[in-house]
Amino acid sequence: MNNFTYHNPVKIVFGKETIKKLSTLIPKEAKVLMLYGGGSIKRNGVFDQVMAALKNYTVHEFSGIEANPEYETLMKAAELVKKEGIDFLLSVGGGSVLDGTKFVAAAVKYTEGDPWDLLDKKPKIKVKEALPIGSVLTLAATGSEMNGFSVISRRERGEKLAFGSHLLFPVFSILDPETTYTLPESQTANGVIDAFVHVMEQYLTYDVNAPLQDRQSEAVLKVLIEEGPKALGNPNDYDVRANLMWCATHALNGNISCGVPQDWATHMIGHEITAEYGLDHAQSLAVVMPVLIDNRKANKKEKFTHYARRVWHIIKDGDEAYAEGMEKTVDFFKQIGMKTKLHEYNIDKTGFENIANRLDARGIKLGEHQDIGKKEILEILNACY
Amino acid sequence: MNNFTYHNPVKIVFGKETIKKLSTLIPKEAKVLMLYGGGSIKRNGVFDQVMAALKNYTVHEFSGIEANPEYETLMKAAELVKKEGIDFLLSVGGGSVLDGTKFVAAAVKYTEGDPWDLLDKKPKIKVKEALPIGSVLTLAATGSEMNGFSVISRRERGEKLAFGSHLLFPVFSILDPETTYTLPESQTANGVIDAFVHVMEQYLTYDVNAPLQDRQSEAVLKVLIEEGPKALGNPNDYDVRANLMWCATHALNGNISCGVPQDWATHMIGHEITAEYGLDHAQSLAVVMPVLIDNRKANKKEKFTHYARRVWHIIKDGDEAYAEGMEKTVDFFKQIGMKTKLHEYNIDKTGFENIANRLDARGIKLGEHQDIGKKEILEILNACY
Repeated sequence: MNNFTYHNPVKIVFGKETIKKLSTLIPKEAKVLMLYGGGSIKRNGVFDQVMAALKNYTVHEFSGIEANPEYETLMKAAELVKKEGIDFLLSVGGGSVLDGTKFVAAAVKYTEGDPWDLLDKKPKIKVKEALPIGSVLTLAATGSEMNGFSVISRRERGEKLAFGSHLLFPVFSILDPETTYTLPESQTANGVIDAFVHVMEQYLTYDVNAPLQDRQSEAVLKVLIEEGPKALGNPNDYDVRANLMWCATHALNGNISCGVPQDWATHMIGHEITAEYGLDHAQSLAVVMPVLIDNRKANKKEKFTHYARRVWHIIKDGDEAYAEGMEKTVDFFKQIGMKTKLHEYNIDKTGFENIANRLDARGIKLGEHQDIGKKEILEILNACY
Repeated sequence: MNNFTYHNPVKIVFGKETIKKLSTLIPKEAKVLMLYGGGSIKRNGVFDQVMAALKNYTVHEFSGIEANPEYETLMKAAELVKKEGIDFLLSVGGGSVLDGTKFVAAAVKYTEGDPWDLLDKKPKIKVKEALPIGSVLTLAATGSEMNGFSVISRRERGEKLAFGSHLLFPVFSILDPETTYTLPESQTANGVIDAFVHVMEQYLTYDVNAPLQDRQSEAVLKVLIEEGPKALGNPNDYDVRANLMWCATHALNGNISCGVPQDWATHMIGHEITAEYGLDHAQSLAVVMPVLIDNRKANKKEKFTHYARRVWHIIKDGDEAYAEGMEKTVDFFKQIGMKTKLHEYNIDKTGFENIANRLDARGIKLGEHQDIGKKEILEILNACY
């Protein structure tokens, strides 16, 4: 096992009718900005629940945060925060709204230049100050509710970049599984894939003799495989929704990555596919992950065979176990409605060179062995097609 | 799944040569009291490592904290804290030293009466203030390094009682597995049992459709079963020690109990056996747990059979699976050197009535269904003999 530091101070308030606890979680004197997306929270009653819980607060609103939250939009929110003297940000929505809120929290305190610096400067600029954030989560997917990471897009430049800080952990996150009943099937499926691939990025590398972390990762994968399809068939099953929600949080709260190597190449390439072609985040992951593992088979075969045995109960050996594990994985993605090849999205290959160039320009190779460069990225993209 | 709140702000610093990070974790201006036990940390070099790391601090020492830390001893430490104006407590040792340190942290700030009130008053008195605590852990067992619980003994009264508060979470815990190489075999085995039973108290109740928590519990149990015996045969195997240490932390950091019922009757009865007869904490648990499950078989059979299947891979059904699961569990306890019956400790049964009376006098029944009263406690104690 490798050395590690683990520190996750997010307070999770989980369960039915927990939105009403907001008034016990936000300081009484706070001037709150509520940030949300396109209005689904108005249709499903979450907006009204939040407003009822905050009836004794000064609350401003900022709506219209997109999936793949956009720099331009968020800078408008940051303006509003400054203008109104807001001192607490409440994200109400899924991971995109929360990632956007994290950017706003840091942007309003960054006075040295354009807040985009926090994402694209090399070496990384550290977040030194941020507004406190609370979260009411309405989608089980990104894990953003229990970590300090954020991914922001800047369409004008075709960029989608990540940043993170301990100052961007939400103070609290309210997870009421009932808020996810009304999600479109495709978003439920996206969430399952997002959580699944988060686990794989931290698990599917190489063995460092960390059996607890392995088994904890396998626990999340197994439950996603068991519960994911149930949510599609029966969207109002509370326990299924609760189990998926808790899985997604555990997939990226830092626990399963303690003391083990991490990959994240699927995410790096996936982000660029989204930036280039507009695929949903999870759609890009479902296409890239199996192909990337195959491309890196020499290094990943041992752990993938272990995964095939543990997660899919495949009792064959070597190449046979590998092949059957891969087949089961891709079948699972298809079972919950994901496409697994880029050509199914009716896009052409003309953007592949852009993607590889953008990643190459950052000057780092990808993967747990840092052995995925421009050549391998193009191989992977072509095999994804 | 039941509703829950999870909030664990302890910073874990895990790995080789991490004690030297102390000076980055304790505020520069702090006046530190280092609390420790009987001196094993002087023999194994941990004392010197801590002192070297704290060379620029004002450090006072308090030694002599016992296994089952004692009220009388800790009140002397509290006196020293007040006299010297200490403002940071550093526990260097196992769970007993850390539990004792937590008591001192609360005791020095409790001005309304005898600090023992915090343990024995009904209804429970809330800890309102406490000194900050840091921990250098030298034993994988209690999980105290990542929770706010503490168990203190008061021999003159034959009492061993628990208390807890969010204010008693350590600010940080340093876990260097190498500090556990020199433990006597019996203490290593005690630690494995302590962690194992902690998991069972939170897992072996009844099903509430929380498959992630179940699998996370099973993960800890499986790794304890695999790694525990290895530590006895090869005490200086770093990875084995690291895996056990991380398991013990996960057994009681609040994660696996999220949204599920909890038992803790084995601990309540075990504490009284220790108070009455002086058995080690883990020795009492190894005797009580299997008997208590048998006594509550009507309620626990379903989950125990699930455990037998998942953890011991028993493919039989019903009573056969139950019986074989129980046999495997007790065999595992014996394999790592635990006695599993009270008569093996050369004690007589004369204290059983005292134990049952003391528990009965607290006016609450034990177990996840609160159905273990005086009659059942006596049944269990007799069956433990």
